[in-house]
Amino acid sequence: MMRHFDKTSIMEAESFFRRDFINCLSGYKSLNLIGTKSKSGQTNLSPFSQVFHIGATPPTVGILFRPHTVQRHTLENILETGVFTLNHVTQDFFKEAHQTAARYESSEFDAVGIEEEYLLEFYAPFVKPSPVKLGCRLIEHITLQVNDTVLVIGEIEHVWVDEKGLRKDGSLDLNALGTVTVSGLDEYHIGQKLARLSYPKPGKHLEEI
Amino acid sequence: MMRHFDKTSIMEAESFFRRDFINCLSGYKSLNLIGTKSKSGQTNLSPFSQVFHIGATPPTVGILFRPHTVQRHTLENILETGVFTLNHVTQDFFKEAHQTAARYESSEFDAVGIEEEYLLEFYAPFVKPSPVKLGCRLIEHITLQVNDTVLVIGEIEHVWVDEKGLRKDGSLDLNALGTVTVSGLDEYHIGQKLARLSYPKPGKHLEEI
Repeated sequence: MMRHFDKTSIMEAESFFRRDFINCLSGYKSLNLIGTKSKSGQTNLSPFSQVFHIGATPPTVGILFRPHTVQRHTLENILETGVFTLNHVTQDFFKEAHQTAARYESSEFDAVGIEEEYLLEFYAPFVKPSPVKLGCRLIEHITLQVNDTVLVIGEIEHVWVDEKGLRKDGSLDLNALGTVTVSGLDEYHIGQKLARLSYPKPGKHLEEI
Repeated sequence: MMRHFDKTSIMEAESFFRRDFINCLSGYKSLNLIGTKSKSGQTNLSPFSQVFHIGATPPTVGILFRPHTVQRHTLENILETGVFTLNHVTQDFFKEAHQTAARYESSEFDAVGIEEEYLLEFYAPFVKPSPVKLGCRLIEHITLQVNDTVLVIGEIEHVWVDEKGLRKDGSLDLNALGTVTVSGLDEYHIGQKLARLSYPKPGKHLEEI
């Protein structure tokens, strides 16, 4: 049985219901820990489910920052220093990753017990146990009129990836890497592959590749 | 063992490698079929992995449209008519959903055999077998300077959800709904729940909820 909600019934629902409901509607989301460091040297680590591909040439990612949330520390550090890291989360530390969203005064790395790591000369901290780590540099940020959400666009300067999950064609085997996905605000899942499908053309039968 | 790529080695890699590699870096992505109809009445259906939550009050979603792709039909219809639908994809029809990305002259609904459905007075077509269907209205679109990607922001006017996946608190059980997630360009997965975690606070032990 399908349940119907229109805009009026959504707006009249309890705020906790609306928040959970709307957050779940897009489906499974990517999960990354963003590592930053303020100019004064304070590190910060925060979970984000709003990281997405913008383009491959040059390699760019986008992140949406909600207004008035604890995540603003991360945004301030990015605007101040111009750099940040993105780190996949695995089954081994997804609870610690969730806990980094708490409002700590000190560094979340220390507070939750996730080890930080510095690679080459990159200023922002990486997450040591992460199987996919990106070093990114801010190139543009845009404030959306609709609700003051900020879209940050970063160029990917460095990638470290565990070779057990890197295929010859450049794609990543996220199942092998143990990457975790999130739904809504607080529910974590691993992926279970159904199939990889050939390039779709009219009149051509799809094959599993 | 970790493999390192810097910007130079990414830019010097074969274009197919770079495309697959960068597309996979954000992790698991949401998968939705977007349904539209041109003013002249031609329907269109296309898979998108760049749909994300923007805000709950009012309920809004964002979609990123890559420049110069087949998906531009969808964008043209949205700009022309102001409405579109978002529809979750399940294990039962993810291959047909993938096939809608082929360059058809006619409607993808007919071409791949996905049944369309009209609900209330909404102009754009929904996907009949989908367990989560959203009717959305365009409120803003922004072209990103970095690579002419277009960000479309829509207000959610209607939601239909299969009640087997709707929890009392408003969250959706995506495992129960059978919602599919995508990695990279062509790899499909279902989710397998690890845990749902309590609200994180400093000094408070996380509980599974």
